[in-house]
This record gives sequence, structure tokens and C-alpha cells, in this order.
Amino acid sequence: MDGPLVTKHYLELTPPTGDDPLADLERLSAGLAASGVPGIEAIDVPLSVAAAIPAALRESGFRATASVGHGTGTRLVRVEPGDTTARNYGLAVDLGTTNVVGTLLDLNTGAALGEASEVNPQVVHGEDILTRIHFCLKAGNLELLQGEAAGCISTIAARLAVAAGISATDITCVSVSGNTTMAHLLLGLDPYNICRAPYVPAAFSFGTLRARDLRLAVNPEAVVYVLPNVGSYVGGDVLAGVLVSGMHGRDGVSILVDVGTNAEIVIGNRDWLLVCAGAAGPALEGGVVRFGMRAMPGAIDRVRIDPATFEPEFTVLGGVKPKGLCGSALIDLLAELFTTGLIDGRGKFADPGLSRRIIELEGRRAYVVAYAPDTFDGADGGLDIVFTENDIDNLIRTKAAMYTALSVVTRELGITFGMLENFFIAGTFGAYIAADKAVAMGMVPDIELSKYRLLGNSSLAGACRVLLSREALREIDAIASMITYKQLNVSTDFMSEFRAAMFLPHTDSSLFPSVTS
Amino acid sequence: MDGPLVTKHYLELTPPTGDDPLADLERLSAGLAASGVPGIEAIDVPLSVAAAIPAALRESGFRATASVGHGTGTRLVRVEPGDTTARNYGLAVDLGTTNVVGTLLDLNTGAALGEASEVNPQVVHGEDILTRIHFCLKAGNLELLQGEAAGCISTIAARLAVAAGISATDITCVSVSGNTTMAHLLLGLDPYNICRAPYVPAAFSFGTLRARDLRLAVNPEAVVYVLPNVGSYVGGDVLAGVLVSGMHGRDGVSILVDVGTNAEIVIGNRDWLLVCAGAAGPALEGGVVRFGMRAMPGAIDRVRIDPATFEPEFTVLGGVKPKGLCGSALIDLLAELFTTGLIDGRGKFADPGLSRRIIELEGRRAYVVAYAPDTFDGADGGLDIVFTENDIDNLIRTKAAMYTALSVVTRELGITFGMLENFFIAGTFGAYIAADKAVAMGMVPDIELSKYRLLGNSSLAGACRVLLSREALREIDAIASMITYKQLNVSTDFMSEFRAAMFLPHTDSSLFPSVTS
Repeated sequence: MDGPLVTKHYLELTPPTGDDPLADLERLSAGLAASGVPGIEAIDVPLSVAAAIPAALRESGFRATASVGHGTGTRLVRVEPGDTTARNYGLAVDLGTTNVVGTLLDLNTGAALGEASEVNPQVVHGEDILTRIHFCLKAGNLELLQGEAAGCISTIAARLAVAAGISATDITCVSVSGNTTMAHLLLGLDPYNICRAPYVPAAFSFGTLRARDLRLAVNPEAVVYVLPNVGSYVGGDVLAGVLVSGMHGRDGVSILVDVGTNAEIVIGNRDWLLVCAGAAGPALEGGVVRFGMRAMPGAIDRVRIDPATFEPEFTVLGGVKPKGLCGSALIDLLAELFTTGLIDGRGKFADPGLSRRIIELEGRRAYVVAYAPDTFDGADGGLDIVFTENDIDNLIRTKAAMYTALSVVTRELGITFGMLENFFIAGTFGAYIAADKAVAMGMVPDIELSKYRLLGNSSLAGACRVLLSREALREIDAIASMITYKQLNVSTDFMSEFRAAMFLPHTDSSLFPSVTS
Repeated sequence: MDGPLVTKHYLELTPPTGDDPLADLERLSAGLAASGVPGIEAIDVPLSVAAAIPAALRESGFRATASVGHGTGTRLVRVEPGDTTARNYGLAVDLGTTNVVGTLLDLNTGAALGEASEVNPQVVHGEDILTRIHFCLKAGNLELLQGEAAGCISTIAARLAVAAGISATDITCVSVSGNTTMAHLLLGLDPYNICRAPYVPAAFSFGTLRARDLRLAVNPEAVVYVLPNVGSYVGGDVLAGVLVSGMHGRDGVSILVDVGTNAEIVIGNRDWLLVCAGAAGPALEGGVVRFGMRAMPGAIDRVRIDPATFEPEFTVLGGVKPKGLCGSALIDLLAELFTTGLIDGRGKFADPGLSRRIIELEGRRAYVVAYAPDTFDGADGGLDIVFTENDIDNLIRTKAAMYTALSVVTRELGITFGMLENFFIAGTFGAYIAADKAVAMGMVPDIELSKYRLLGNSSLAGACRVLLSREALREIDAIASMITYKQLNVSTDFMSEFRAAMFLPHTDSSLFPSVTS
């Protein structure tokens, strides 16, 4: 029977009498069994829930609502006086290495009641996963990272609850999707062996946990489901992406590219699923690019360059003055600079005489996207927001790595890009990437644009899905059991193909007929 | 499959490799499944146990010992490096209203490694159950009583662990037997409705809990099994008594009398079991009798009176000078005073001229058991330890209530005392009561002495049994489901029978031929 992870059941029980002195808990259980809750005979009743039953029943003349969690087992999560079945809430979380995003769901209707995001507070200890794993070597630091992850989710829960006019205690289930390391850190599991051969996580699956054990500030007995992983490189976020794409249920072969801090490629259909890790992420998320930044207020997210004047037009997230460039802007810039002829196929700028926007900077050239007075920091301390040849080199390296990985893995499987039924792009800013631009820079293959499907934050969408459907929960397990990790074979072939891809869109222009025509 | 509540399994696992990158938890689970642990596929793994696995496995070259709890479900309790199967410990507790007694058990051999007892710290809030339930009406007091009960058990665990040379963390399962109210107080469940019509407990059964949820200072993930109750008056201590007596498995009808702070009578055989509450306890446990005290160091526990000199001979618990009289001494005294002719059938003393031990005290008479200089407090502040006519009145009332209850319930069932196969006496000092003395004072019927079986602390013995045998756990549930509570019908008949029993051994001497002959 499908339904949300936690269901509510309104029970009108007969009050006890001398002839019917059944205990409160057993009376409630009998009521649940009579209302057809399956498996209730083996229900797990946490002490704090049992303790609340006598008062809840008597406050309401033995008419009460029981919240029942359906995870690894059946668990009594909450008992409230009266009929509260109309109020049933869950929190879905995408626990990203960089950003944490939560959606509050009405479990009765499936409606999203709000979304909130926070920068993962763990970033102060390191931007990437490896740094955080290393940070955990010192005693106490794993507990610190656990507390930060839990605290961040608690903050999001509190904000969403207040905005929706409910109490955080009303949140009786939480689903969390994230990569293998982030899941370990949230659960306080040592991530040490994730990044060391033979790359073994502490656990693949985590069962259904209790919020109190994770120190999450929602209902203490809330059912917490952290999506499983299938290895160090294939986390719950990837499984969520597959779930949301539906590729695991189709006859035709699809590809799913998850462009986040790390990039994974999933390929397959209803019969087989293969995943391999790419390396597209970092350059697209800031740090590697001079003015790169995360998709947050102040980030330029869309850029168009006038082919006649070479002047840019852009939009900024949050309606403020620009601070930097997020991933989608980088892709736009690279594609626009190339198609307008401001850079050549190797990513080298044309002569500065062509446009006042091309300037010399530290011995190389750069394009000024926004002049200092028009930036967030203003004329005083502000800098021109520029896009440099170094940035372009890094981006081309990133796109070449992605394209080569796609190319190698398909060829090894005997598949051509043309055979693909769908090409899903997921990830933190997957929703913002324009497929035509990604094709134009040669990051993804030149196939019909209609085959590209932007999934947006499929990690979050997957987390929402499992809150609303136990069937989806089983589907996640099915995906996990059919998916295989494939180490990309970094052979001589790979390296020569990689070099060939270090060109816009590709040294072999026949691979991108729609771009070069 | 029978076995202790927690079993240990030594696993020699294959370390992970690139070709076999199974996660640590799943590797351990596979090892357990291969070693034939049933139901392991649905094992519950608390987060703190999962977190300990990676280090435990690597510390020992992937040779580790898993402790598995078998309660309502299967639960992973602990993972230790190396082979620790020889060390498997559990704590059985009799949580009495007055005394708390614990036994540390070697779960491999069934051997008792030590016993320790403490006065229940809750007694400062009231000697009896009703006072404590009333005490809980004030906010915060239930939590206080919970903490005191848990703290007392933790103290006992610590003492037993140190004495046995183990750590309290090595105790991975705890069973607790107590009356319905004591079980509620330990679990933090409101006992309010236990003592108010229609007398409904918060719960009959409590499942298998975790030590951390009860704040018990043993292994935090230890499986805690609190014996169920079948109503306000029939607690886990009574079920434990039945289990230990074995009366629920016999063809013949037996009676079990539990003489503790409260007294319960169970009657039945393999086909039916009936329980009714008596009221024998209080007078036998101190408070009601002037020099009455609990069975602890300083308590006179055995008394004999020389029929020629009328001088007493007694033994004292703990090998110290006497402070008072415990229950068994009271029964001895009453019987000896009567058989030596120092008191008559109504409990009135003979003329003081008969013995220097008979003195006048506050207008009535009393028997001096020990003169002040021979008592614990010595000559200075000490008092003579006396046994007064008032004490005797109370005792006779108590024994009359017990005998009348036995008499009424058997007659209503159409059973004569002669038809009984066994008569079990259980309770805190059940081990000390001499059956012949109990018969002599007319507390229990005048049947063959060989039919009397002293069970001692059967509540504790039952708690031990369920730690060592899952079969016994199921037996407890079977007993609970077949037992029926019967309210004693306090009719005119009962009252006249009660008055008739207010005589030593009984106004109808034909009922006690062996005493009066």
C-alpha cells in the first residue's frame, strides 16, 4: 500500500470501564489494527510516545490521532488529542556539500509549503569533501561536523515551520538526500575509509532513524530516512536523480549528468544502470574561476553578448548589484564569447582593439562583464567583474573532462549519442543551464535539443518523492541494487581524447554539426 | 531457537578490496547472516552502533564480535574487535516498592556472578504505591521518580560490575520485574490511572527498550526488557512468580502467594490462571509493627522460644546486634508465643507472672525479645526490642485477611485446600518463612507441609530466567494472556469469615488439625 512515510489515523476509541480495563497503549493499538493499519501488531513504540498517550486520550474523550511511521518497521511517532489528520508535515532535505536546501511538504496533498536554503556551515572547514574528511581525523571534529549538519537542517526546519504557521514539532518525518560523505557526516559515521582504497563507506543503508538520535530540532520521534548510497562515489543524491528522471523504468537508454560540486554520469535503462564519476563540478561552482561564486543573491546567472556591440546583458539573482558569476553564467559566457568571435576555439581572446571590454590583466587577457561602479561593492572598493583566459582554460578543461567521460563510457558500452532516448541534466544549478549553451561549448553532445531534460535539484526532488511515497522508497532500494559503479579507464586513449576535446566546441567539428554550421 | 536475550557472534570477515567494496555495516550483516543469526535481514542498527563498526573491524583485521539483541525485533547492540564471545553479561532486577535487588548473570553459563540490593530511593516520597502515585500529581515528580529508579538500578549495575571485574558497558541486556506501578515509574509513564477506576495502566507491554532511553548506566544500547503487566494489580513480579513456580504448566491446581509489600494470590493450572489481590503485606514489612523492619543487617529473622523457660533464641541478619524484627521473625514469634502458651488464641498475653519477658507497656502487654544492652544501639540510647499486643492484633488481622482470601477464592472456584498440588510462597522474605509456622498461626491452610514450596524472591528469579531464555520471554506473554484478575467479593460472608479467622490458628479448630492436636 502506497502513501507517505508517516500516516495519520483518527481513532474514536471506547473509554475503558471495569469490564474493559484494557491499558491505554493496547487500546490505541487495537484501534489502529481495526482501522486497518498493516503490521501494527509489531509496532515499535518509543517510550516518550507511550508516555504521552494517557493524557492525549483523556484530553479528548478517547478520540485521538496517531501518527504512524512506515520505514524499516512500523513505528508509533506521535499521539495527539482530537482529529489532527488534516495536519501532516514532512521535511525533505538536499544536504549538499556547499548548499543545504529544504522543502516543507504537506503529506496529505503533496504540496510544497515552502523552500529554504542555507550555506552548509561545514564549508568553513573546507570547501570540498576531501578536506572535510581530512578534518575529521582530529578527535571531536566528526562530532562538530555532525552538529553543524544537524544544526543547519534544524534552522531550515524552524524557518519553514514558522513561515507555514506550524510548529517544528509538527514535522514528523524527514528525508535527506546527499552524497555518501555528507550522509556519513550527518549521521556521525566516520568518513575516513570513503576516500582511501578500497573506498568503503561505513554503511550503504541507514534504516529509519529517530530525529532525537541525530539531534534534529523537529519532533524528537520523527522518522528520519537518509537515502542510501552504493559506494564512496555514488551517493543518495545520485539515486534520487535516477528516481526523479525515471530512466530506470524506460526501455531506451538515457544519460543523467549530475553537475554539482562533483559530477556523476549515470547511463542505462530498465535493465541496467551504470554510474561513473566525472570531474566537471569544481570549475562551475566558484573557487577555480576568479569571480566564480555559488548561485546565491548577487550572482550573475545569465549572460548574453550583443554580437554587434560586444556589450553584455545579464541578470543577477536576488535583484541586487552583481558580485560574481555562478555556473550557468560561466557556461553562457564561454558560449557567447565563442559564438561572437571574441575568443577562438582554443579559448584565446581576440585583439583588444575589437572591443573595449577586452582588457589586459596580469599578462593575459580578460573580458569585463561589469565595471566596478556597477558592482555590489561599488566604485570605492569594488573591482571590475572579469572573465579571464585562465578561467576559460579551467572551464575548457572541465567541459573536456565531461565530454570525454561521456564519450568514453558510451563507446565502451557500444552506444552512440544518437541512440540516447533522453539526456538528463541535474544538479544544484542544473535548472539554470541552457542546454543549447552547454552544447555550444562542447560540454555535452550535439544531439536534438528536445532530448535534453533539465531536472533542477533532483536530489531535493527525490527526497520529496520518498516522503510522499513508500513505493518510491522501495524504488530507491531497487535502483541501488541494480546500479553498478564503473571506474573510468584513464588510459592513453582517454588522455588523447581529452586533449582533442580541449577546443570549442571540439577539434573534430563534425561532432558538433549544429554549432559549427 | 532458545538462548539468552543477547547473543554474541564472532565473525571472521574478509577485508574489503577493490573488487569487493561492500560497506562495513553490510559486510558485518552478511557475516551474521552466514553464521545463521535468524532475522538478521531486518536487523535494527542504532546509529551509535553503526558508528563504532569501522574502527572495530579495522582494529582486529575484520575479526569482530557482534552482540545481537532478540526482543520485539532483532537489534545490533554492540560490535567489539576480536573474539569476546566468552564475555556476555546481563543484569536482572527485581524493582520492588521497598527494595531493589539485582543479579549479574553470565549469559553464556547462566551463572549468577553477584547479587546486590539497595533500598528503593523513592521510599523518601512515601512507603507505599498510593503515596507515590499521589506524589506524581505535581509536575516534575514523575521525572524525579523515574530518575531515582534508574539511578538505583545504575548503582546496583556499577557495584556488580566492579565486583565481577567487568565494565558496566559490558552489560548489554537488562530485565526488570516489578509491580505495575514500579514499572510505570521506571519508564516515566504516568501511573495516575492505575489507582483510579476503572484502574487502567498506561500500557500492559513495553517492548524492548534501549538503556539510553531509560538513562540506565549500562551499555547505552543495552536491550531493556521490563516484564509486562496484566492490569493495575497484576504486575510483572506476579507473572515472574508464576513463571518460576511452573504452575502454569501443571495439570494439578496450585496456589501461589506473593507476600511482599502487597500480597497477591494466584491460583490455577495449565488451563486457567486466576489472580486476586490480598492485603497481607504491610504488617510483615515494618511500619505497622512497632519494631518491624525490612530484612536487612540488624534484623532478627528467626526466633524460637524455649517452652520451659520462655526465653528466646534468635538469629540476626548480617551478624550484628539486633535492631528490629523482620517478617519471618514476626511469624515465628506469633507461632512460638502461641504454641508455648504465652498468648491465647485471641492474641492476648498470659499473666506477667508466667515469665519475666512479659511486661506491661502503655496499658497493654508485650514480650521482650531483646533487652536494651543487647541491642544494636546498646545500653545508652537503646530500647528493649518488644513484640506488643498491638503488633499481634495487626498480624492476626493480616493473617486473617490472607486466610479468608484463600478460603473465599477456593470455595468460589469449587476447590478444597486438599485438592491443591502445590502451595508456593514467594516474596521478598518468602525464602525465610517457615511453612510450619505460617500454618501454626493460621495464615495458610493446614495441608501437608511437603506441598509448601518456598520460592524466595521469584520476581528476581523470573527476571533472571527471561535474560537467559527467549522461550521464557514467550512464556511470560503466554502467562499474561491466560491470567484473569478476579476482584475479591467483600460480601457479608467474607466479613464473617474474616472475623472467624481472627483467632490463632482459627476459631474453627477443625480446619487446623495438625496445630490443635
